[in-house]
Amino acid sequence: MTEPRSTPASADPATVQVGLGDRAYSIVIGTGVLDETGPQLAAIVRPGLAVVVSNPTVGRLYRARVTASLEAAGFRVAGIEIPDGEEHKNLAWVAFAYERLIEAHAERSTPVLALGGGVIGDLAGFVAATYLRGVPFVQVPTTLLAQVDSSVGGKTGVNLPAGKNLIGAFYQPRLVLGDIGVLQSLPRRQFLAGLAEVIKYGVILDAELFALVEAELDRILQQDAGLLRRIVRRCCELKAAVVERDERESDHRAILNFGHTLAHAVETLTEYKRFLHGEAVAIGMAFAARLSRARGLCDETTVERLVALLTRAGLPVAVPPDAAGPALVLAIETDKKVAGGKVKFVCVEAIGRSRFELLAADVIAAQAAA
Amino acid sequence: MTEPRSTPASADPATVQVGLGDRAYSIVIGTGVLDETGPQLAAIVRPGLAVVVSNPTVGRLYRARVTASLEAAGFRVAGIEIPDGEEHKNLAWVAFAYERLIEAHAERSTPVLALGGGVIGDLAGFVAATYLRGVPFVQVPTTLLAQVDSSVGGKTGVNLPAGKNLIGAFYQPRLVLGDIGVLQSLPRRQFLAGLAEVIKYGVILDAELFALVEAELDRILQQDAGLLRRIVRRCCELKAAVVERDERESDHRAILNFGHTLAHAVETLTEYKRFLHGEAVAIGMAFAARLSRARGLCDETTVERLVALLTRAGLPVAVPPDAAGPALVLAIETDKKVAGGKVKFVCVEAIGRSRFELLAADVIAAQAAA
Repeated sequence: MTEPRSTPASADPATVQVGLGDRAYSIVIGTGVLDETGPQLAAIVRPGLAVVVSNPTVGRLYRARVTASLEAAGFRVAGIEIPDGEEHKNLAWVAFAYERLIEAHAERSTPVLALGGGVIGDLAGFVAATYLRGVPFVQVPTTLLAQVDSSVGGKTGVNLPAGKNLIGAFYQPRLVLGDIGVLQSLPRRQFLAGLAEVIKYGVILDAELFALVEAELDRILQQDAGLLRRIVRRCCELKAAVVERDERESDHRAILNFGHTLAHAVETLTEYKRFLHGEAVAIGMAFAARLSRARGLCDETTVERLVALLTRAGLPVAVPPDAAGPALVLAIETDKKVAGGKVKFVCVEAIGRSRFELLAADVIAAQAAA
Repeated sequence: MTEPRSTPASADPATVQVGLGDRAYSIVIGTGVLDETGPQLAAIVRPGLAVVVSNPTVGRLYRARVTASLEAAGFRVAGIEIPDGEEHKNLAWVAFAYERLIEAHAERSTPVLALGGGVIGDLAGFVAATYLRGVPFVQVPTTLLAQVDSSVGGKTGVNLPAGKNLIGAFYQPRLVLGDIGVLQSLPRRQFLAGLAEVIKYGVILDAELFALVEAELDRILQQDAGLLRRIVRRCCELKAAVVERDERESDHRAILNFGHTLAHAVETLTEYKRFLHGEAVAIGMAFAARLSRARGLCDETTVERLVALLTRAGLPVAVPPDAAGPALVLAIETDKKVAGGKVKFVCVEAIGRSRFELLAADVIAAQAAA
């Protein structure tokens, strides 16, 4: 993190490579890359039909720009609109998307673009992974959370009533286009939720990134474009390195689930309605730090720095009272990461350093009650 | 094909390796391998919960044997039952299977076994590919068609109202157990339908295999165990070689779709009810040979030998009158293999030799009307 403090917003886009052999791809990050969608896509697939999956909010703001760019590059564009919100990331809307692809005569070579946040990216990615056994997939993330995390690495998924992302596939995008400019239209609450995942990368992998967010929080909250570009790029570099080492989460990649065991349980128990994903992750990270401290894995300062930064960023840090008892145990047990009844729980050792602990669900739930 | 004419049924099982790097697996072929399910599975995953997906007919005949073998090897067994028939290979039954996996507390390490024919294998494979983003998958094919074709190579899929296998994933099994003994309980019509795929391998890839089926058809129809073992093994070897060269059907693997373009259209237009898949493939192969002849790609003798063998095997060779005209054009255009409006159609040049032709759907349909 030795770049100049104030990168101009108009700088050329930065490119991060995800090195996965024949599934390698580029993440392009910068202001205005939305208007490069057409040429960028034409560089990897032959122009023809392209299908843009979005939601009404994002579609109203950005679909026209993406469509204009695609059409200028020779694509015909069909659209699929999924209602806003995590509660629509389900199999019924997946089936709806399949029907629309059939109607549009989408073929094996037809690219599917996800224009939106994590919900659109996860759902459109699953659809792209499974329609005709897989079509080219492009992520155009429009939230901070999606730009730093969910659009990179090939996890796709939809929810079942029993839990989040219980259905899905590992399916890498062919291209990721992260336009920093679109973050200006993001509601503040959504922006802060994305910041939770940025802080996550700092805690588990990069003390310098954590210190940067601590030092520059005010400018980040004012959405300084150069600073945001630098942060998004750093998060993508960190994630790319993890994914290159362990694409299918056999082992090391699970480190990115820091805060997520409790977050998923809290989201399930509050029916995905009360908290944004990043907010649930903030609660889960503060919890994981306290549990790490209780097990003697980190010192009190580590917990305090994390909780203080999350709080300054306006993020929740307290486990809600209704996420407790047997319901919490059951919700944790239904998590994908359970093996032999135990959870591979990510603990923090110090800011920038983390490790796994195998813990039973009731041990985790007991800490929540503490 | 230089093995002795009469391999004893009690011979040690034959093993065919599918060499796909970190996704490599074994196909075990022989009489009684069903009773080896437990030890074979325990060799690749740690005993714990195992989930057997089957249908009522196959389940009644073989579930107890498979369960006993699994339990003796230390597994706990849960079952999922899908009704018989291609019309149940759909998203509704996929969702049903997900719910049952959740109820059984299936984890990422829980193996899912498909005990049945192609419908069960395709559906259970898709479920295994997508539940928790993928769990270990084992094929225990109980039809000749599944043993020689659908259980090998990692294609999973379910149907949409618009067409067959429009949804799916490439997901390799960890193990395939082909028990020749179970073919004795197979209804004759099902057995003959499987023979259509055996004949397909002969036509496109192996003149010796074709000649063997011509010469030994009577003994094959009497289900000589040694001969069946030899034929199933040869088909698996041929398919493994194709899949090793082109796992995701970028190119060469599409050769296995010989007869399938018309077969899928016929199945769609007759709502999967009138023909078994292998019967539709027989119709499609006879059709593809006639089309190849009409385009000057093969001689009349090739067409005659194929049609004669299919007819001797009691398989249909005539395109049904209702699979014609605009409906047929539309059904062909909805096929997964369409690219730029054209179909990569597999033509025969001679018995044992085949090639692709790029054909428009209406050109194919015109041949059907001829």
